[in-house]
Amino acid sequence: MFGRFCRTIFPMKALGFDAYGTLFDVFSVNSLCEELFPGHGSELAQIWRRKQLEYSWLRSLMGRYRDFWSLTEDALVYSANSLKLDLTPKKRDQLMESYLHLAAFSDVKPGLRALKQIGLRLSILSNGEPKMLNAAVQSAGIGNLIDAIVSVDSVKIFKPSPPVYDQLASELKIDRAEIGFVSANNWDVNGASSAGLTAFWIRRSNEIPEELGYAATRVIGAVTDLPTLVSG
Amino acid sequence: MFGRFCRTIFPMKALGFDAYGTLFDVFSVNSLCEELFPGHGSELAQIWRRKQLEYSWLRSLMGRYRDFWSLTEDALVYSANSLKLDLTPKKRDQLMESYLHLAAFSDVKPGLRALKQIGLRLSILSNGEPKMLNAAVQSAGIGNLIDAIVSVDSVKIFKPSPPVYDQLASELKIDRAEIGFVSANNWDVNGASSAGLTAFWIRRSNEIPEELGYAATRVIGAVTDLPTLVSG
Repeated sequence: MFGRFCRTIFPMKALGFDAYGTLFDVFSVNSLCEELFPGHGSELAQIWRRKQLEYSWLRSLMGRYRDFWSLTEDALVYSANSLKLDLTPKKRDQLMESYLHLAAFSDVKPGLRALKQIGLRLSILSNGEPKMLNAAVQSAGIGNLIDAIVSVDSVKIFKPSPPVYDQLASELKIDRAEIGFVSANNWDVNGASSAGLTAFWIRRSNEIPEELGYAATRVIGAVTDLPTLVSG
Repeated sequence: MFGRFCRTIFPMKALGFDAYGTLFDVFSVNSLCEELFPGHGSELAQIWRRKQLEYSWLRSLMGRYRDFWSLTEDALVYSANSLKLDLTPKKRDQLMESYLHLAAFSDVKPGLRALKQIGLRLSILSNGEPKMLNAAVQSAGIGNLIDAIVSVDSVKIFKPSPPVYDQLASELKIDRAEIGFVSANNWDVNGASSAGLTAFWIRRSNEIPEELGYAATRVIGAVTDLPTLVSG
């Protein structure tokens, strides 16, 4: 009994995972960016990702929600224009299409499988609109490990707005005290923590934590670190 | 009579100006950044400004307002940490202090003076908290040209949230159809435009417009372009 308590630091019934940057590597589009715009691939991918997030925050604050797919396309148009790249309709379609087949990080499948084996319900909580999330999940071959895909599209406002994180408890019908949220985006971790969830930060790069006042409950290195920390 | 109508494209009773980046040059802190951290000044100033804005958006969305002075300090701490710079309390104070004495762009004083002469009421609408705005206005010597300083601190949410822009009409007691808003920050222009104000974008750099759907009513090059466009 004592041993069990020692092992299980965070008793949980369910986990919610951020998608982009956490399960799926948004920079796996880099190679296509580079192929289409030699010498500018990495810079294009960086600006694209930054603008995608900025537009999600700005549109949320303006009260002008637009689904994440359209907003990702807006961000791509801005990024190409800002670098004076000729984004033909064909190149635009190719780059947008790549968002449906992002690579999953290598720790994702083994980590989710181990969490599933100890009885946790696993869900995605993402800015993505349902169609693009479903495509990415299928493409990464993790459809059988995910019990629920929860999209901000139901509440029409993006992270880190509290109603987004509140969705996990209401959709999973589990008390929020028994739900952990996992993200590699530190601002997202702050949002979840501020909204009262136990929040795990996967530190996938050498990024430092944001000064936003709502730190991660625990910092981990990979999804595979979770099974020894939480229990079903 | 006919001639007068021709000259006056936008009949206005008042103008609201964004402060940071529009009247005051936030990158006038660059030289102090460089003096304190040789070789890193420009990069530090860039990250500091970007994080300052990000934190204003993120905290607004989280429903965790914190005044702009404190948030600017949080952004400075993050930026120095991210570059592994040793931000001593003394250096921190010096850099924060510099925010109270930002240089005004060279077109600001002559532009405001000309607008005042044709009978317009001139105000500032800014994320800044009142104390830091007052200090910057006095330091730039434009106190006698500004009729009202309106801060988001009254509504406890940052731009581009609509209640911020609504403040101009309520504080100035002028119908919003007769108020123009002026900003060099294109996302701010989109916010004002989305909130129903006539919005002028001062294009101070070679920045391109954001893909946010609420373009400027008119793009100008400097505050001194306004007197031929608007009238009191």
